[in-house]
Amino acid sequence: MSSNIFFKKKNIKIRKVFPDYNFKENFEINSVKPLLQANKKDITFFDSLKYKKHINKTKSNVCIVSKNLEHHLPNTFNKIIVKNVLFELARVTKLIYPLADIDYPDLSIDKPKKVNFKKVKFGNNVLIGKKVKIGTNSIIGSNTVIESNVTIGKDCVIGSGVIIKNSIIGNNVVIQDDSKIGQKGFGFIPLKEKNIKFPHIGKVIIEDQVEIACGCTIDRGSIDDTIIGKNTYLDNQVHIAHNVQIGSNCMIAGQVGFAGSSKIGNNVSIGGQAGVSGHLKIGNNVKIGGGSGVIKNLNENDIVMGYPAVPLKVFVKKNKNDNE
Amino acid sequence: MSSNIFFKKKNIKIRKVFPDYNFKENFEINSVKPLLQANKKDITFFDSLKYKKHINKTKSNVCIVSKNLEHHLPNTFNKIIVKNVLFELARVTKLIYPLADIDYPDLSIDKPKKVNFKKVKFGNNVLIGKKVKIGTNSIIGSNTVIESNVTIGKDCVIGSGVIIKNSIIGNNVVIQDDSKIGQKGFGFIPLKEKNIKFPHIGKVIIEDQVEIACGCTIDRGSIDDTIIGKNTYLDNQVHIAHNVQIGSNCMIAGQVGFAGSSKIGNNVSIGGQAGVSGHLKIGNNVKIGGGSGVIKNLNENDIVMGYPAVPLKVFVKKNKNDNE
Amino acid sequence: MSSNIFFKKKNIKIRKVFPDYNFKENFEINSVKPLLQANKKDITFFDSLKYKKHINKTKSNVCIVSKNLEHHLPNTFNKIIVKNVLFELARVTKLIYPLADIDYPDLSIDKPKKVNFKKVKFGNNVLIGKKVKIGTNSIIGSNTVIESNVTIGKDCVIGSGVIIKNSIIGNNVVIQDDSKIGQKGFGFIPLKEKNIKFPHIGKVIIEDQVEIACGCTIDRGSIDDTIIGKNTYLDNQVHIAHNVQIGSNCMIAGQVGFAGSSKIGNNVSIGGQAGVSGHLKIGNNVKIGGGSGVIKNLNENDIVMGYPAVPLKVFVKKNKNDNE
Repeated sequence: MSSNIFFKKKNIKIRKVFPDYNFKENFEINSVKPLLQANKKDITFFDSLKYKKHINKTKSNVCIVSKNLEHHLPNTFNKIIVKNVLFELARVTKLIYPLADIDYPDLSIDKPKKVNFKKVKFGNNVLIGKKVKIGTNSIIGSNTVIESNVTIGKDCVIGSGVIIKNSIIGNNVVIQDDSKIGQKGFGFIPLKEKNIKFPHIGKVIIEDQVEIACGCTIDRGSIDDTIIGKNTYLDNQVHIAHNVQIGSNCMIAGQVGFAGSSKIGNNVSIGGQAGVSGHLKIGNNVKIGGGSGVIKNLNENDIVMGYPAVPLKVFVKKNKNDNE
Repeated sequence: MSSNIFFKKKNIKIRKVFPDYNFKENFEINSVKPLLQANKKDITFFDSLKYKKHINKTKSNVCIVSKNLEHHLPNTFNKIIVKNVLFELARVTKLIYPLADIDYPDLSIDKPKKVNFKKVKFGNNVLIGKKVKIGTNSIIGSNTVIESNVTIGKDCVIGSGVIIKNSIIGNNVVIQDDSKIGQKGFGFIPLKEKNIKFPHIGKVIIEDQVEIACGCTIDRGSIDDTIIGKNTYLDNQVHIAHNVQIGSNCMIAGQVGFAGSSKIGNNVSIGGQAGVSGHLKIGNNVKIGGGSGVIKNLNENDIVMGYPAVPLKVFVKKNKNDNE
Repeated sequence: MSSNIFFKKKNIKIRKVFPDYNFKENFEINSVKPLLQANKKDITFFDSLKYKKHINKTKSNVCIVSKNLEHHLPNTFNKIIVKNVLFELARVTKLIYPLADIDYPDLSIDKPKKVNFKKVKFGNNVLIGKKVKIGTNSIIGSNTVIESNVTIGKDCVIGSGVIIKNSIIGNNVVIQDDSKIGQKGFGFIPLKEKNIKFPHIGKVIIEDQVEIACGCTIDRGSIDDTIIGKNTYLDNQVHIAHNVQIGSNCMIAGQVGFAGSSKIGNNVSIGGQAGVSGHLKIGNNVKIGGGSGVIKNLNENDIVMGYPAVPLKVFVKKNKNDNE
């Protein structure tokens, strides 16, 4: 499935979006995607050397790029050279998906029709959007809202007061009371008069056997997706920003926060109230102590604590010295 | 509008509240207000030298004051001299507004009558109190509760599961799912037998173009108001305590917390999980790094990080040394 | 009352649970309890020398114990000697209480019947389970869910969007909007293929005059109970993990988090965003500064700040030196 099931796309041609550029073929744009995921009729973007290796792998040939990076792109690309890649990306994405920059509540939600959900149990006052799919033996608690096109697997237990949108949820997933999954992330271009809201056309993917406790917030991706890997457990009041991707078998304690776009490995454990900055890479089997502030990438098997986080041994030694 | 639209006032005369004092005229009390906002028939208070400059500007002449500060007040005031200003203020405010010290849920809320909200779109199970005003083209998500007398401007998008009370909200405001606006703050006088709850008669004012993400809590003011300035954006799970006033164009990342009564300038950006102590003044254009703990006033253009927060350069240098 | 009112018990005999052991009498198991609370037909456990003093006080004689601790137990016990006490405890508890390891939403909840709650006021769309008791003059806000068997005292004010389960709540308690009380805590045995969820058969006990602000999460105990003592006040977004026991007259500011099983004394005050690690003992009258990370026991009257928390004087001195 190449088109976006959560956001209504406007059919718009490439020459209309970029009237100052020459395109051989005036094709209808499919979507906006990161280099690796972009196909032929997608628009892509290149805004950081981190993603240089992805240039050869993309199937798109329309790339928004900044002046100082454009020489990395072969001339086979239609280069849309701009001052501010994010700004242009917001403009283009907004043209194609005009309703993704604000979380307009889904007004089509209504009581579930039993005929569509034969082996699903519902509490009171559950509200379900159109084309929602819920697997057999799943249970949905009272006052929970599931917006259109969400998919929930089988044998899931969703609590009360939960709000899910723009998400695909696996099997055997538990989501406790009052968690919010799939909302728009904190992305905008600051302007003094009026910020430009960045459209969020990504989704949240929650893999099998994940458990999410109460009052968590998991934002959907902006262009990419937010992912919680298999058998990963989140405690209460965890905040996961847009585009964060967490591996399998992780343990994330209460009130931990992730800024956007970090990639967390497998078997990572994070103590309560720790924070992970944006755009980091945290290796497999990493252990992060409670209250830590992680502001650098961490290698596999690292054990860190502190603000900023340092190897646990350094943290212990430093605090011993301080108190002598 | 001088009287409080959110809390039912008891008509009570000044001699009844302070029977031990001589008042020339036994007037009916209007309200309780800070020095600057207080008018002729309001009771005001003076409990910190920070507000000394406000003495000459108040229009009230009934002032609750402590023994050690009373000499700053001219004798034109009726001075209510007490040991503990907050204690007396709680007693007086409770007499005038008997229902403001606990968040009694508004039991008058009911389904919105279409005739009152012709150009407003509602989700399912929205509950609206009396005299609520909502501007044209605004959308209110499902299960959202808006208590009596709240005003919401035009072109607003309010998510699902939101609870708003004692608030005045501008135009083009976005409030995402499950945020709570206008609740009573954390104010009380600790007593071992039974704390005295401080009445909260202030409101929350949210200016135009503000965006508030999911699961935030913004408490109303105690005597003063809580204010979020124009075009300021809050990420998920931000906590804003009573009387905090935030300027325009600020960016507040996820899980940031403000203790009570701090004043934040314009164009301030604050990283995730940072905390700002109470009664501080943060200048314009300040940048506060993620995870910081701010415990002192900050001047315009300061860039700080750390716990406690120090200039960013100091923080970087210190952590470099620590790791050598 | 010896049996668990919140979780349906399976009637199961001791020889069936431990077929490899010789029991004189094949009695029906009553429950699983900590040493101090366990009665004759309860199963108990001994997994830490901290609880050595409790061995002589227990009335149970079936004790799950690890190889390295078993010599502390007199031979009057039926010792169930295992490698991993928690693992075995999870297995046994799951056999006796098969529905306590996941928060299955209570599907029996429905609109309250006036006849059962003559002097209670309800908002709109309140949902109440079976056998719920609510005292006179209490008020329950709209969209609030109270699951089966919960007891709420008299003169309580419960806000809107609150979810309460597995809890016993005293008189004069205030719970503000959207708090979640009694959910399953963050307890499981990590396994790469599929974690084993630890059943939570404890409850939450909230004593008289407690005030809980908005968006808090208070998890029920696993085997023991979670307790909030009389006249203790919690601010917004506080997270209290399973088995935490907080004394009377405490003040807990916004976004504070407690990891599991810590015991907090009376008259303790904790500043915003502080964190308290698991299994600690915090004495009476302790003061913990905002943002602190407490990782050690604290004695009565200690005043601490910092991450990790140190005596306030040390913290102040250290930060003074750092900035010179």
